[in-house]
Amino acid sequence: MASTATGEEVPNKRVVLKYYVTGFPSADAMEVLTGTASLAVPPGSSVMVVKNLYISCDPYMRDRMTKHERPSYVPEFVLGETLVNFGVCKVIASGHSDYKVGDLVWGVTGWEEYTLVTEPESFFKIHHPELPLSYYTGVLGMPGLTAWAGFFQVGKPKKGEYVFVSAASGAVGQLVGQLAKLTGCYVVGSAGSDEKVNLLKNKFGFDEAFNYKKEADLDATLRRYFPEGIDIYFESVGGPTLEAVLENMRPHGRIPACGMISQYNLEEKHGVRNIFQVVAKRLRMEGLLVFDYYSDYYKFEEEMAGYLKEGKISYVEDIAEGLEEAPAALIGLFTGRNVGKQLVAVARE
Amino acid sequence: MASTATGEEVPNKRVVLKYYVTGFPSADAMEVLTGTASLAVPPGSSVMVVKNLYISCDPYMRDRMTKHERPSYVPEFVLGETLVNFGVCKVIASGHSDYKVGDLVWGVTGWEEYTLVTEPESFFKIHHPELPLSYYTGVLGMPGLTAWAGFFQVGKPKKGEYVFVSAASGAVGQLVGQLAKLTGCYVVGSAGSDEKVNLLKNKFGFDEAFNYKKEADLDATLRRYFPEGIDIYFESVGGPTLEAVLENMRPHGRIPACGMISQYNLEEKHGVRNIFQVVAKRLRMEGLLVFDYYSDYYKFEEEMAGYLKEGKISYVEDIAEGLEEAPAALIGLFTGRNVGKQLVAVARE
Ligand SMILES: NC(=O)c1ccc[n+]([C@@H]2O[C@H](COP(=O)([O-])OP(=O)(O)OC[C@H]3O[C@@H](n4cnc5c(N)ncnc54)[C@H](OP(=O)(O)O)[C@@H]3O)[C@@H](O)[C@H]2O)c1
Ligand SMILES: NC(=O)c1ccc[n+]([C@@H]2O[C@H](COP(=O)([O-])OP(=O)(O)OC[C@H]3O[C@@H](n4cnc5c(N)ncnc54)[C@H](OP(=O)(O)O)[C@@H]3O)[C@@H](O)[C@H]2O)c1
Repeated sequence: MASTATGEEVPNKRVVLKYYVTGFPSADAMEVLTGTASLAVPPGSSVMVVKNLYISCDPYMRDRMTKHERPSYVPEFVLGETLVNFGVCKVIASGHSDYKVGDLVWGVTGWEEYTLVTEPESFFKIHHPELPLSYYTGVLGMPGLTAWAGFFQVGKPKKGEYVFVSAASGAVGQLVGQLAKLTGCYVVGSAGSDEKVNLLKNKFGFDEAFNYKKEADLDATLRRYFPEGIDIYFESVGGPTLEAVLENMRPHGRIPACGMISQYNLEEKHGVRNIFQVVAKRLRMEGLLVFDYYSDYYKFEEEMAGYLKEGKISYVEDIAEGLEEAPAALIGLFTGRNVGKQLVAVARE
Repeated sequence: MASTATGEEVPNKRVVLKYYVTGFPSADAMEVLTGTASLAVPPGSSVMVVKNLYISCDPYMRDRMTKHERPSYVPEFVLGETLVNFGVCKVIASGHSDYKVGDLVWGVTGWEEYTLVTEPESFFKIHHPELPLSYYTGVLGMPGLTAWAGFFQVGKPKKGEYVFVSAASGAVGQLVGQLAKLTGCYVVGSAGSDEKVNLLKNKFGFDEAFNYKKEADLDATLRRYFPEGIDIYFESVGGPTLEAVLENMRPHGRIPACGMISQYNLEEKHGVRNIFQVVAKRLRMEGLLVFDYYSDYYKFEEEMAGYLKEGKISYVEDIAEGLEEAPAALIGLFTGRNVGKQLVAVARE
């Protein structure tokens, strides 16, 4: 089936959004339907058809599940249409000269078995198929590039600096912490369970880690872990965590602002009351979105593949089996059900 | 009296803080006392005695009027001791080889007639006494350097960009707006009275200006003035203004965070609920404190003196006469009583 385009129609399971959500979403907002897919590309076109092997569950998708009053940084999903997000794919038909049948690629694809890709140029080639292909949804894919660009290019770390990472056991956080250790920083991470704290300390080599759900006074907790203060806060959580961090930043500290997952499901967002610390401590808080760094991707891929092969970076993923599990896997990000990078195996190949 | 050190004791009016304040302060928290000053420097020491000509009223002084629970970026004033802040002074006795009697200098001095300066090296020399000396509390002094460094070094403006300035008619704001115009930016300012709005448009050359007290929905107001969004927000006000601005920033916008005067007197600070815009729009919000830029001062002084002489920069100041007026002048900053840079003439010379 995956050899050449034949024009045959095959069944195609797909995940769609049933209704726009507000507040904390339920997996119910999505459903898995079965349609059909054509495995051929129209003659003369430059599109391609891919078989989806692994699809990624990413927190930003939450924003796409809500109807926007004003345009957001990503458009909302279209109800009834197949959800789209990053995935690892095999090309099974191609009218594009740069992509041939059998190529392994990653990029934005459908939450379905087969996807007709109208913009093949938006896909990256996979140069290290000797590593687990699923890694291209994480450490070698979008979250990896986010961690690498966010920490180095936005955070501009120096050896010996004090680094705090929130959502530290997740896809991005586990890598930020390890890159910080490779840079010679002192690194503390926070996560939502003792199991995750154990991972941080014993698998990822963080200097310290704590379960934020057990800390009543995060400001005091951070003061304890960072008596000298924090030079770099890699921000993934926002809200009260950001407030506590601002109290504990050192002068000229940096906050690469990657995400604020604690706020994504809140109808009334938490108001940050101590933004004045940005002035008083001359902090630099700077947002990043991974697609601004796509031009660095292949450089990053080589560097990260090297770290993985040399055993300098460890990586933990949480793989749900089959598209049926995708809605719950996505929602699980917001309760911290995932341990490590959450993805879905659509087809193992 | 101002010629050489004679050892004589003279009466010395001075302003002291009577009690630490919370919330909105009253001029009553300060009082004007009369003590004595010696006009001589102890033989062999390297201190100097200055006669204070003009002293500056600056918003950050509010922080020094409150007892701090945790160390702040500036220490609190000592009750009963003479207040200190930037001023323009004439040296009347000196044991320091770099400063001689008759020199005109500016730096941190006392809110009094005569001050014994123990660290003369912290004072800057005045190279343009042909311009009004009072300018060295403002356009040629600390607020000027703040505007210049904050706009150029932190804001990194480009020709044609859209710039919003809050507290725009004040010491810093009027200069930021004019520097932005000199850079070829489109500039809108907000201020708290129609008189100030008139100044912005007709004296300082802002493209547009509005009285924020008359705008019920600042988000909508900004959308009207910036249909394309804001590239640089020079932040002096904080709170709800910052929130409205965040909704209207353009991708990759910059926020030099200079101050947040709307928050200085609040016991409960306003919580900023849409900090996530920093991520979504990849904003850079960066704090600055002027003393980080002192090494650029003389370069700045030449540049700004040039603009003033060529008529490229206009400047408005609000001068209170005599130390007796100093407490009310300081408090007036927080009600917007000042039109332009607020200072106090201690002695005209
Ligand atoms: N800017 C970009 O281009 C970009 C790219 C990728 C990711 N991101 C952002 O980076 C962050 C991490 O993403 P990821 O892919 O690595 O996800 P992840 O960390 O693998 O999964 C999300 C984790 O967030 C934590 N979490 C959920 N709700 C929380 C809450 N209310 N308070 C604190 N923690 C909570 C949970 O871990 P615990 O058990 O520890 O609570 C959960 O496992 C997110 O904010 C995401 O939006 C940004
Ligand atoms: N980071 C640094 O190193 C540095 C150095 C100097 C100054 N600053 C900061 O820069 C800002 C401006 O200082 P400045 O010396 O130029 O003072 P200024 O603007 O000359 O005077 C203060 C002005 O702030 C406005 N204001 C007062 N309360 C307000 C409120 N609740 N909401 C909105 N506006 C309010 C008033 O004007 P309206 O009539 O327009 O309301 C008042 O005239 C302050 O935040 C100050 O702390 C920082």
